[in-house]
Amino acid sequence: MTLRSLARYLPILDWGRTYGRGALGNDLLAALIVTIMLIPQSLAYALLAGLPPEAGLYASIVPILLYAVFGTSRTLAVGPVAVVSLMTAAAIGTIAAQGTVGYAMAALSLALLSGLMLLAMGIFRLGFLANFLSHPVIAGFITASGILIAASQLKHILGIEGGGHTLVGILWSLGENLGALSLWTLFIGLAATGFLFWVRRGLKPLLLARGLTPGVADALTKAGPVAAVVVSTALVWGLGLQDRGVSIVGAVPQSLPPLTLPSLSPELLRQLLVPALLISVIGFVESVSVAQTLAARRRQRIDPDQELIGLGAANLGAAFTGGFPVTGGFSRSVVNFDAGAETPAAGAFTAVGLAVAALMLTPLIHYLPDATLAATIIVAVLGLVDLSILRTAWNYSRADFAAVSVTMLATLVFGVEAGVSSGVLLSILLHLYKTSRPHVAEVGLVPGTEHFRNILRHAVQTDPTVLTLRVDESLYFANARFLEDYLSNRVAGETALRHVILMCSAVNEIDLSALESLEAINTRLAEMGVKLHLSEVKGPVMDRLQRGHLLEKMTGQVFLSQYEAYQSVSGLQASAAQ
Amino acid sequence: MTLRSLARYLPILDWGRTYGRGALGNDLLAALIVTIMLIPQSLAYALLAGLPPEAGLYASIVPILLYAVFGTSRTLAVGPVAVVSLMTAAAIGTIAAQGTVGYAMAALSLALLSGLMLLAMGIFRLGFLANFLSHPVIAGFITASGILIAASQLKHILGIEGGGHTLVGILWSLGENLGALSLWTLFIGLAATGFLFWVRRGLKPLLLARGLTPGVADALTKAGPVAAVVVSTALVWGLGLQDRGVSIVGAVPQSLPPLTLPSLSPELLRQLLVPALLISVIGFVESVSVAQTLAARRRQRIDPDQELIGLGAANLGAAFTGGFPVTGGFSRSVVNFDAGAETPAAGAFTAVGLAVAALMLTPLIHYLPDATLAATIIVAVLGLVDLSILRTAWNYSRADFAAVSVTMLATLVFGVEAGVSSGVLLSILLHLYKTSRPHVAEVGLVPGTEHFRNILRHAVQTDPTVLTLRVDESLYFANARFLEDYLSNRVAGETALRHVILMCSAVNEIDLSALESLEAINTRLAEMGVKLHLSEVKGPVMDRLQRGHLLEKMTGQVFLSQYEAYQSVSGLQASAAQ
Repeated sequence: MTLRSLARYLPILDWGRTYGRGALGNDLLAALIVTIMLIPQSLAYALLAGLPPEAGLYASIVPILLYAVFGTSRTLAVGPVAVVSLMTAAAIGTIAAQGTVGYAMAALSLALLSGLMLLAMGIFRLGFLANFLSHPVIAGFITASGILIAASQLKHILGIEGGGHTLVGILWSLGENLGALSLWTLFIGLAATGFLFWVRRGLKPLLLARGLTPGVADALTKAGPVAAVVVSTALVWGLGLQDRGVSIVGAVPQSLPPLTLPSLSPELLRQLLVPALLISVIGFVESVSVAQTLAARRRQRIDPDQELIGLGAANLGAAFTGGFPVTGGFSRSVVNFDAGAETPAAGAFTAVGLAVAALMLTPLIHYLPDATLAATIIVAVLGLVDLSILRTAWNYSRADFAAVSVTMLATLVFGVEAGVSSGVLLSILLHLYKTSRPHVAEVGLVPGTEHFRNILRHAVQTDPTVLTLRVDESLYFANARFLEDYLSNRVAGETALRHVILMCSAVNEIDLSALESLEAINTRLAEMGVKLHLSEVKGPVMDRLQRGHLLEKMTGQVFLSQYEAYQSVSGLQASAAQ
Repeated sequence: MTLRSLARYLPILDWGRTYGRGALGNDLLAALIVTIMLIPQSLAYALLAGLPPEAGLYASIVPILLYAVFGTSRTLAVGPVAVVSLMTAAAIGTIAAQGTVGYAMAALSLALLSGLMLLAMGIFRLGFLANFLSHPVIAGFITASGILIAASQLKHILGIEGGGHTLVGILWSLGENLGALSLWTLFIGLAATGFLFWVRRGLKPLLLARGLTPGVADALTKAGPVAAVVVSTALVWGLGLQDRGVSIVGAVPQSLPPLTLPSLSPELLRQLLVPALLISVIGFVESVSVAQTLAARRRQRIDPDQELIGLGAANLGAAFTGGFPVTGGFSRSVVNFDAGAETPAAGAFTAVGLAVAALMLTPLIHYLPDATLAATIIVAVLGLVDLSILRTAWNYSRADFAAVSVTMLATLVFGVEAGVSSGVLLSILLHLYKTSRPHVAEVGLVPGTEHFRNILRHAVQTDPTVLTLRVDESLYFANARFLEDYLSNRVAGETALRHVILMCSAVNEIDLSALESLEAINTRLAEMGVKLHLSEVKGPVMDRLQRGHLLEKMTGQVFLSQYEAYQSVSGLQASAAQ
């Protein structure tokens, strides 16, 4: 195997060979910025997944290193992300109680399964499966997840207990425990949330107005969560609020990521199978779309199948080093990109930075209130909520609207797994339904051209002895009988009719069921003294027809173009010759 | 509501008004022939379904009357049929033991559920759902069912106990009980089977050679089972074989169909839900294809949605009169048709004939051996077995072959429900897979025409500044990203390229996901200085595009025809003007 072909599977061999001082400087700077941003984010997503805070740091270290070796994106930053963390909590929450060893073990097993599935999909080149998550389903799911995530964090803002994995469940649980409200927690939570929203919306314009460069303004804005963490930690420590009902992060071990072994209990793995599949596919779709967006800006290419391998390796890394399922994150990748990262080495440096943080800085976050982390989550995920997709889809098509709204509703009401599954299923069913009742246009010749169009939409020339139908769909089992019925109804009582031409420009396939139908149509038309012709049959379809018996039995001919067919069977030529 | 519009829902009002003496004579004769044929057949299918023999008679009386009122076929004969009886046995066999009251009650409940489902599908015009049973799936299923049915009857030929609903299960059970073999039963069984095969294959040519008219020869051939019944019954009675291990039909009540109430136990109905759905759909597909074949021969029309109502009513009738699930049968309908039946009144007369038989003739079949009934079933169902579909499908397409063979294998190995379900699922998945990786042709102008074809298959004219791609598939979520990737790879390094035309003659839909992809393609091409054009966009697709933002953002134009597009953007016009 040459280095070049090996580099396809180990992209590091590609960029690593030419790595120079310029790239090193840029990558180091980007890594510094991303590390600062990732510390609170990692802690927060661990909280969202129901895991101890250090799990968030661990999940950001080894996975990012492995992705740097196997991934094809130059700037994707891999680690815990909001939606996958929510799905993790939903998957494990029904199996083990939060805070138990079983819960953390289940998270490792979930990362293991997800890693293996992603690797398998990459090796067998099954990346196309992700295409079945349509745009409306993804958009609906992300928006609903954002709402669910924000709702799930309200308990930390209120300082009460809470649970549930559906909107109703979460709100109900909040209502039940509202009596135990902690005012100090609420104060910190609201202040942090308000501050972070202001940072997001109001700070940058202000800084720009004060004359700062966009780059500096951006960096300061991104540091908002760090400021909130520092201030609220200091407040709790200074006032001793941990004794007044404010829940804090507490003791976090000072350690590099530990070596962990996921539970391999068959019963547990069986329960995690479906969640792991959904997490893998959702994580992959999110990650690859971020990677492609960023790659396109620098004219780089992403190989989706190799991405599966990169993400698979990252998740296996998470499984064996105390993490939980990870994927490429939108915000961290954009920060990395904007900070000037040139190669995956930036990711490796980020990993080093986080490892240092895990080893040295954890005592500093002892007094960090959960409410602050919840605030960073809420502010981050509300950016995911985009209800305008409902209007866009409604305007475009009812089927797309149905997919968006059902996904959104099912996610909110029944939870993340039901949401994704029902969205995908509905999209497929609607597609099948549409193709089972195809649009059929009766076409005629556009005068002065050789072009044929719908007689209802264009002023065209026709001949009463010739009926030309353009079926706007591949002919396959789901619509084979539809065409039979359509033709029976259409030709009944047409006494002048002598020729039926099926214009096959939109027929991309004719399967065995449709072939049977065409033979039946041919026989029935023959009994009425009408010939059946085909025109504009495409190469691949023609190849197949030649292997069946239709062409031998057909009363008419197959014409290269519709114009040729029309000229040949209608009186056009005859009258032109007179 | 006028009589004419009412007649749509009550077809009897249509043919009943003009019913005359000529039709009456023909119908009476046909009814006589069908009645004689149906007596052994009804008993046999009851045996196959695991029910007492009279259930077969009852299931042929009221259902046929109700179909005569509501059905649209003039000659379809409704009653127990082989495949549905097998499915009934498979569905109930796991719930109750054969011979118990619970078993018979479950059969009634299954007929009730099936009747309600068929009615609902008819009322909501869901007949198109049956289209998802593709031709290969039906062919594979019927063939495998034939083999299963024949195997399930071997126990009656051998005179032993037996069970099982899969080929392995049935054969295993036979092997276990083979020690209890009854030689007299085997003698009768083999003799009857051999005789019936000879009647089917050898008798008719012999009779024709002896100078009989085809009509008489046919009638004598059809009477074969009756002869086998009479002779074997006489033999058992004469030799007292019932005491030598030959299992006989025994005492059958002399009664008109009783009024029965199906069990409404929610637990039972829940268990029967999926089997009832499959029985309904399979029964409907079988029945409607028989009805359409016969109707086409006399230029009559079948309304599939009204057929659902007719079959639904028939099954409800079976549920309340001691029957089991029924549908339109192939052999009985063909006999009815060939015997000259003109209207559904023939069915009504058949019902009267069978009622008389149930009331008067049941004592005569007391000594009828089960082996003879099993022989009539085996000979009948082996006619369903058609392994040639495997070769036909293999020659035509791998996907169709996969559907046939998986359906067949799953039916034999896992049983009827698994067989149908896996066949339908596989067909749909293969279809989705194919459409997710569409054929894309690069096309050029066929010289001397305005027609564009694949540059790889035809000698065509092209222009290095113009790339025209014909995507042979609707653009929807499953292939949206495929097109993005395809275009990125195709245009990379094409420095002369200025225009990309997507020829949309085969694009029957563009959904929201594909719209996003087209916008992304437009943007990326624009960055490379290449314009994106569309040509031959169909009316319905154009209507939709006008509701999105693509057309505003698009760098190029939408052309009515590909020829117009090519002329406009290539140097063709310019050079022609010189």
